[in-house]
Amino acid sequence: MKKFMQDDFLLQTPSAQKLYAAVSDTPIIDYHCHLDAKEIYENVKFENLTEAWLKADHYKWRAMRNMGVSEELITGNASDYDKFVAWATVMPYLAGNPLYHFSHLELKKYLGIDEALSPETAEKIWNMAKNVLSDTGARQIMEKANVEAVITTNDPTETLEYHVKLKKENFRIKVLPAFRPDKALNIEKPGFNAYVKVLAASAGTEITDLDSLKYALKTRLDYFVSSDAVASDHGLDYVPAYSSEALSAETVFGCVLSGKPVTKADTDNFKFEMLRFLGTEYYKRGMVMEIHFGCVRNPNSVTFAQIGADSGFDCIRRDTDADNLFALLDALRSANALPKTLLFSLNPADNDFLVSLSGAFNDDADGIKGKVQQGSAWWFNDHFDGMNKQISTYAAGMPIDSFIGMLTDSRSLLSYARHDYFRRILANYLGNLVESGMYPENCFGYLEKIARDVAYENVKAYFNL
Amino acid sequence: MKKFMQDDFLLQTPSAQKLYAAVSDTPIIDYHCHLDAKEIYENVKFENLTEAWLKADHYKWRAMRNMGVSEELITGNASDYDKFVAWATVMPYLAGNPLYHFSHLELKKYLGIDEALSPETAEKIWNMAKNVLSDTGARQIMEKANVEAVITTNDPTETLEYHVKLKKENFRIKVLPAFRPDKALNIEKPGFNAYVKVLAASAGTEITDLDSLKYALKTRLDYFVSSDAVASDHGLDYVPAYSSEALSAETVFGCVLSGKPVTKADTDNFKFEMLRFLGTEYYKRGMVMEIHFGCVRNPNSVTFAQIGADSGFDCIRRDTDADNLFALLDALRSANALPKTLLFSLNPADNDFLVSLSGAFNDDADGIKGKVQQGSAWWFNDHFDGMNKQISTYAAGMPIDSFIGMLTDSRSLLSYARHDYFRRILANYLGNLVESGMYPENCFGYLEKIARDVAYENVKAYFNL
Amino acid sequence: MKKFMQDDFLLQTPSAQKLYAAVSDTPIIDYHCHLDAKEIYENVKFENLTEAWLKADHYKWRAMRNMGVSEELITGNASDYDKFVAWATVMPYLAGNPLYHFSHLELKKYLGIDEALSPETAEKIWNMAKNVLSDTGARQIMEKANVEAVITTNDPTETLEYHVKLKKENFRIKVLPAFRPDKALNIEKPGFNAYVKVLAASAGTEITDLDSLKYALKTRLDYFVSSDAVASDHGLDYVPAYSSEALSAETVFGCVLSGKPVTKADTDNFKFEMLRFLGTEYYKRGMVMEIHFGCVRNPNSVTFAQIGADSGFDCIRRDTDADNLFALLDALRSANALPKTLLFSLNPADNDFLVSLSGAFNDDADGIKGKVQQGSAWWFNDHFDGMNKQISTYAAGMPIDSFIGMLTDSRSLLSYARHDYFRRILANYLGNLVESGMYPENCFGYLEKIARDVAYENVKAYFNL
Repeated sequence: MKKFMQDDFLLQTPSAQKLYAAVSDTPIIDYHCHLDAKEIYENVKFENLTEAWLKADHYKWRAMRNMGVSEELITGNASDYDKFVAWATVMPYLAGNPLYHFSHLELKKYLGIDEALSPETAEKIWNMAKNVLSDTGARQIMEKANVEAVITTNDPTETLEYHVKLKKENFRIKVLPAFRPDKALNIEKPGFNAYVKVLAASAGTEITDLDSLKYALKTRLDYFVSSDAVASDHGLDYVPAYSSEALSAETVFGCVLSGKPVTKADTDNFKFEMLRFLGTEYYKRGMVMEIHFGCVRNPNSVTFAQIGADSGFDCIRRDTDADNLFALLDALRSANALPKTLLFSLNPADNDFLVSLSGAFNDDADGIKGKVQQGSAWWFNDHFDGMNKQISTYAAGMPIDSFIGMLTDSRSLLSYARHDYFRRILANYLGNLVESGMYPENCFGYLEKIARDVAYENVKAYFNL
Repeated sequence: MKKFMQDDFLLQTPSAQKLYAAVSDTPIIDYHCHLDAKEIYENVKFENLTEAWLKADHYKWRAMRNMGVSEELITGNASDYDKFVAWATVMPYLAGNPLYHFSHLELKKYLGIDEALSPETAEKIWNMAKNVLSDTGARQIMEKANVEAVITTNDPTETLEYHVKLKKENFRIKVLPAFRPDKALNIEKPGFNAYVKVLAASAGTEITDLDSLKYALKTRLDYFVSSDAVASDHGLDYVPAYSSEALSAETVFGCVLSGKPVTKADTDNFKFEMLRFLGTEYYKRGMVMEIHFGCVRNPNSVTFAQIGADSGFDCIRRDTDADNLFALLDALRSANALPKTLLFSLNPADNDFLVSLSGAFNDDADGIKGKVQQGSAWWFNDHFDGMNKQISTYAAGMPIDSFIGMLTDSRSLLSYARHDYFRRILANYLGNLVESGMYPENCFGYLEKIARDVAYENVKAYFNL
Repeated sequence: MKKFMQDDFLLQTPSAQKLYAAVSDTPIIDYHCHLDAKEIYENVKFENLTEAWLKADHYKWRAMRNMGVSEELITGNASDYDKFVAWATVMPYLAGNPLYHFSHLELKKYLGIDEALSPETAEKIWNMAKNVLSDTGARQIMEKANVEAVITTNDPTETLEYHVKLKKENFRIKVLPAFRPDKALNIEKPGFNAYVKVLAASAGTEITDLDSLKYALKTRLDYFVSSDAVASDHGLDYVPAYSSEALSAETVFGCVLSGKPVTKADTDNFKFEMLRFLGTEYYKRGMVMEIHFGCVRNPNSVTFAQIGADSGFDCIRRDTDADNLFALLDALRSANALPKTLLFSLNPADNDFLVSLSGAFNDDADGIKGKVQQGSAWWFNDHFDGMNKQISTYAAGMPIDSFIGMLTDSRSLLSYARHDYFRRILANYLGNLVESGMYPENCFGYLEKIARDVAYENVKAYFNL
């Protein structure tokens, strides 16, 4: 029996351990996260584990609700300590759940705590963590985690004040913004027109039609690029359709600005055109386009009204509008304007499909490996089986050496432990190939290179970092 | 090499064996089956293995047909012995098929026969089984299997005569009815109006409009509850849509009663409203709502005409109407009337989707673990890989300790062996976690608790038994 | 650590090795491939490995593009040697990819080269292969691979000149044509009317309406049968729908012949009717109907214009029109005209669905095992995990002994190595069952029979060879 989460955690063979050794100390480039640059700049400290873990982590909230814990102890008014104990009480029942591993890796790697969290150890761990946290700011956690660069997620209207300040200060970890113009695309949502005004103001222009909307976005995009942005992101519930029978994007935008009704097909046309337009602009600037889709957000309207969005009530979307994705990529490719593109679906049933699709658009790659590729296992799929499946599906359909690897997608500074988790799974996958006679031992150096490429070199090259 | 189906069957590690020991003797609560209470009351005996195995088991019929066996030897006029020999001849070719394991576990556990069935052993096993079966009635099989409670599947019009008699007799195994009003929902099917009359008579009322239909169903539901019903069940081919553009449920019902034509969108509206209405009524009574969907029934119209329904010709439905499922759950949740709900899809490609969906509706759980949850691997998925996948997907997305575990869904008294099969897979899954360093050995007691919860305690609590 | 690709390659247990020994020397019946009978007749030789591997293999082209290799070195004007070195340079990065195994198995089995291909060994292997290839014609490769029969893929208008010549010559390997009338079904494509004229000429008749089209196809089908055809094939992107609201097949064909516009629903009606008609004709002649579907072809319109079809830019289709597949099979079954049918979907998410569907149409099998069945893992799924998954899903849902096993679907003479790969996976799968106590050791003879059936006997019987 292996001891819990020791040095050989998830590494089943000597080859796996050797490959992990080749990447365990490699710096982390976290190319997609939801950190707040201000918190990094101000080097915020957490008072306790509830602040670090339970203030914003809707994964943990969901797990607690599913165990029947009352909302009072989750997002309610209970004390920090009571909330922590509630979490500690749920913890031992999370066997086989990624939260079990992520939480314990975080305790171990960043707080030096090597005990399993349970009701029995809750008080002790609470106190131990409090001590360490009182000495450790955001920057120290990032340094301890050997982070080289992070890419945050930012609205086009943001001033990027703290990204700029961090740069001026020569903080040795790069904190780069990503351009995420979801609000400029969500034309069917309440608040869109108000947002357009804010966007216009941020760009120092007026927005009266589609051209001026595009102009404002380009202005902000240039500002982001001048602040070292290398990535964009789109959080779509689904990939919208272009329909020649619906209103043109120009007309749709005009209608919405003036309060006239439009249909879903109309707003989809607008969204499709904006994705096409923005993709082209990303391409011109050498930026990466990330597309996240396959979600049903806020299906529980009661909790959406009570607790709001991003609270642990989202779901996998059963169906994926594949035709629209083909149409978008082909429109960009046909205009010689297909940027580097990362595709993330929340539905793991899309894995094989996405890998096969990616491979069909990598003809003009200019030496870039995996120019279009499936992103790593995302959100609900970010667990042991999910990562293994994504990696093996990728390897079977694309050269695994083209994969840019892991990201946290996290709001928490402690989440860098997931990169370690990923590297162990990667090393174990590759190690099993050589141990089982599926890869020649005398080419082990290539396996080490693959491991280093996927853990670090590829993402660095892909984002020009 | 491990010997076939010995004590350590499916248990790969010492930890798995230890965890299995914690649940192997636990009573069985079979919360969804198709047994006939009359057969239990009358303590029927099977003449021979053909009666026990081949009279009603369309899984076995299908396997025989796929091996090219003639219908004469399946549902035809061949002798019981010839049918058994035909089955025994197919058996060795079912390597990797659940029928191979279920059949042999049944021979071993309930008939004391420890030999592999094949053409060579057919006659011997036929005779051995005949001897045992002549001494063993339905009740003895259930007692031998350590059954504590079973929940049968019943039409609202049933008198539940034998459930009541068994209760009066103080039979120590609970035999409880479940309310399955499929015929009251299948408004598009021939015989619906005739069924409405039978339903009205059973409720001692008249049914002339939607209100009186609902009244009749409530009357019968109350009768079921008074006969200890704690569960309902809905066998849907697909989850129907509510459409504001189709006729209202009231109008649809009126049309059908008076023979006027309606569209599929209309009948879907009726079904959606009935599910919503009944869900609310189940909630009021603290009952569980089971929803089975994702089937294509009787696609082969020749065999449907010749052999009828439930004869081994059904299939997995490729697509799942996810939006409708969200709409139904949200309608119930919004009315503060969401009952405990079990979701079963016949398509295993729905596993991840269903687990993520469940977690989004568990906000008002009143201390119930996994109030909405995916049911265990169903029908075509009820096999080694299917169960493993369902368990690991559940554990990755919901706390595995919230899972209520196994059911037989069976017409056969011998099927309790599947609970043993499930417990072995569960123990092996949990055992692998601790053996591979993915769960701490010093928390082994929690793993034992999880095993006991999933095998027994959860289902008991969930159904208030 | 196991050495790379030795005798026990992919065979994890002694039982697996024993089962593999039972099938390793069994002849190969490759029931679906894209070889050119002329090349076999003329016993063509390859100049070098670029000719053998890189002239037509779009799998390899795709892998090179995904690693950022320029098109010049793929389908461009670079020298054969430079192209080979480019391929050798990509090779070590294909860990976990089927191309890695297939390429090395081919080197080993047919060229006697037992070294791993990499930039370091490229020149040496180039020279070694050149020597062997200069002595080895197409027929020698087939003989070395112990091929008993191959079924090529042919348009109805082909003269089958070289199939006939090979037969007259008594070449000891059967080279049989398969009837693939895709061009007669693709009524929406440019060139359809021209094709109809060619078809008419080949049948020595005129085609003026649907009846005469069918007559021409039957005439050609009879010619194929007289040239020993036992199989047909349909390469569909998707299974077309029959709609009573669209134009009849007769009318659609008339419209297209006379240049009148029709809708997609109309052309789908035509296709559905042609599949139904042809299925019936195959049934009458005892032929097998193969249906390949689930593809998106040429989504990248730039490369389609530049490089053409079948160049490595196709994809998995996300969705499968299951209802249409049910309708087609039921229409054939209802007319007592359902032929032996092999179903191949490019989407592995269809595996469970297809196995369950197959089992629903095997009621009139006349002793044929698996009359309707899922074909082996196809194209993008033809890899270690994909084959394992297809085999285990098949075994869980149908008797594994009914499976007809592997095909290459290949344009390359060297691809027979994939049959060896498949047999190893099959033997390993069955071996694991007995080693893990899931199948009785004293029935090992049955496992050997299953292995032989799936590797050879079933396909021989299924195609009446």
